[in-house]
Amino acid sequence: MTTGNADGVDRRPGGRRPGQSGTKDAILVAAREQFAAKGYAGATFRGIAAEAGVDPALVRHFYGTKDQLFAATLHMPPEVLERLHEALDGPLGELGEAFARAYLGLWEDPETGAALKAMMRTALTTDEAAGLLRDFLQARIVERVAAQLGGDRTRLRAVLAATHVVGTAVARHVVRVEPIASLPFDDLVALLGPNLQRYLTGDLPDLPGAHPQHP
Amino acid sequence: MTTGNADGVDRRPGGRRPGQSGTKDAILVAAREQFAAKGYAGATFRGIAAEAGVDPALVRHFYGTKDQLFAATLHMPPEVLERLHEALDGPLGELGEAFARAYLGLWEDPETGAALKAMMRTALTTDEAAGLLRDFLQARIVERVAAQLGGDRTRLRAVLAATHVVGTAVARHVVRVEPIASLPFDDLVALLGPNLQRYLTGDLPDLPGAHPQHP
Repeated sequence: MTTGNADGVDRRPGGRRPGQSGTKDAILVAAREQFAAKGYAGATFRGIAAEAGVDPALVRHFYGTKDQLFAATLHMPPEVLERLHEALDGPLGELGEAFARAYLGLWEDPETGAALKAMMRTALTTDEAAGLLRDFLQARIVERVAAQLGGDRTRLRAVLAATHVVGTAVARHVVRVEPIASLPFDDLVALLGPNLQRYLTGDLPDLPGAHPQHP
Repeated sequence: MTTGNADGVDRRPGGRRPGQSGTKDAILVAAREQFAAKGYAGATFRGIAAEAGVDPALVRHFYGTKDQLFAATLHMPPEVLERLHEALDGPLGELGEAFARAYLGLWEDPETGAALKAMMRTALTTDEAAGLLRDFLQARIVERVAAQLGGDRTRLRAVLAATHVVGTAVARHVVRVEPIASLPFDDLVALLGPNLQRYLTGDLPDLPGAHPQHP
């Protein structure tokens, strides 16, 4: 499946010595494999470094935190998590709009927007990439939103809200379906706000099957 | 570019002559090109047949209606439109749940589900394929839902609802994020129903920018 050799160093025939970018790429290949094989929680810097044949300190030097390394494997801009987490610090009663504004705002910015578009396309192309995205969403976004909410079925609420804003971003920026594509940003946020608020803090039907929130 | 012969007749004996499946494929290639170049509304059986070097009657013989030909270019199961349109015939006040049940139900069926998954992946992979999907959604689903609704900003309402169910289907069946992935089907429909109903027939904020519903 991978094109790397056992020690993870790039040895392209003819010239091209490994160098810094070869090592960075080898780490990224190893990281993608480890995240896919062991999930976000199970993968370690040490294991990824061993797989890439480099020192763990080098992994940290190139990629910083585990979040940032994971984001890099998905081509996810590092601001994404930061801005979403900031949005969660506001009042609970305004979380719907704040969450929509923070996430959809990342897509409005040409630079993070292009990166998110590439990331979504990557994540939806293969089951392996979809698994990486799923694992990351669950470990780093859903759990964080759920912790902020308190109350009942918080993980279900967080996933419903996240799904809705991600779907809206894809409709606006990837499929570009009208009138969502050309709607003023503030209008879009105002339209989504109440629906997201219902998912996050509103009354949900009491469903026997929807209960096990900490499987 | 095309491999079809002029009369489109299957002449299978021995060797690899063009044959029926070669002609069918050539029509599909021509259709995809024409839909991409001229949009769903602009593409014609006649133009597609000319591009494929076959008689228009043969296009109709293999693919039936223009909807069905378009669906085939996206690998979309032909039941999709039918079942969605059926769902729209119920009472307006229950449209949210009916729409969720009809669309998400197509993903629960292993056969149509697999086809829809392939279709979504195709449509999200390139801008050209995304354009095909957008055009089809606008011409054949959004307009139909909007016509059923009456009232204000019907196209916007239809697109918001469609975006939400499509996003949910991708979360459940492609990304498979929990707990959406393993939620009982009826529970999922009950959770989404009220939010879809708000988009379709509920109060939406009065937004100056969201008004031009027939651009």
